[in-house]
Amino acid sequence: MTMSWHTMMEFEPPIVGCVVSNRNFTFNILKATKECVINIPTVELAGKVVSCGNASGREVDKFRIFGLTAAPASQVKAPLIVECYANLECRVADARMVAKYNFFILEVIKGWIDPSRKQPRTIHHKGKGVFMVAGKTIRLRSRMK
Amino acid sequence: MTMSWHTMMEFEPPIVGCVVSNRNFTFNILKATKECVINIPTVELAGKVVSCGNASGREVDKFRIFGLTAAPASQVKAPLIVECYANLECRVADARMVAKYNFFILEVIKGWIDPSRKQPRTIHHKGKGVFMVAGKTIRLRSRMK
Repeated sequence: MTMSWHTMMEFEPPIVGCVVSNRNFTFNILKATKECVINIPTVELAGKVVSCGNASGREVDKFRIFGLTAAPASQVKAPLIVECYANLECRVADARMVAKYNFFILEVIKGWIDPSRKQPRTIHHKGKGVFMVAGKTIRLRSRMK
Repeated sequence: MTMSWHTMMEFEPPIVGCVVSNRNFTFNILKATKECVINIPTVELAGKVVSCGNASGREVDKFRIFGLTAAPASQVKAPLIVECYANLECRVADARMVAKYNFFILEVIKGWIDPSRKQPRTIHHKGKGVFMVAGKTIRLRSRMK
């Protein structure tokens, strides 16, 4: 599935929180298996990102019809998407916010990145198929992590 | 304070989740008052964003030393920051995730935006003072909200 709403929650261990609607096929799978992979696409995949968001795994094999490649993960049964520049293997760390908010708290147990992609141009959903594409990077002196 | 980690959680009512570290002066204020304003800056304010992140309200008046302007909010006692292009007045809707994750679930009860800013160039913290500046907008046909 395509997922928009997520946030980092902790550095160590790395914790990510995300909303997976209970209308999504993924919702019950994630609740049952307590595992998933978050695959991070770049702008080259934007069309497929939207297509995946508008189709359901209940009805179609999205890997096949959208031409995506599955590769085995190392720690979870869900596959990586090869075309994505980063992949985060996750386990559900806390499901207390699922019933009320569809909010899953995930621990990232293994991360993959394509080191050849120096400036991945990520996409950021603004709603209704409108995305902001990552622009330039700026560096400021900071004591922040 | 400067805050990085946040996500939308619901459209209606509008719910935002965010991490406010318990090392921040803001943490106890937010817990006690159950109110805040999220002020969304653009790249023109990047230097002040970092400065605010590296200083504490325990020691300094950030409005004064960084040249920011406070304006009254309509629903909460915390002020708006005039220089920010959008301001979200919030009430804490759920504090159950605060003890373990410093994660506050907020309902946005009033939003302000500067309508003259057509293409606000937001900044997105990548860590250690490095920010991605919002790039171009792309529009794809979608059935997504």
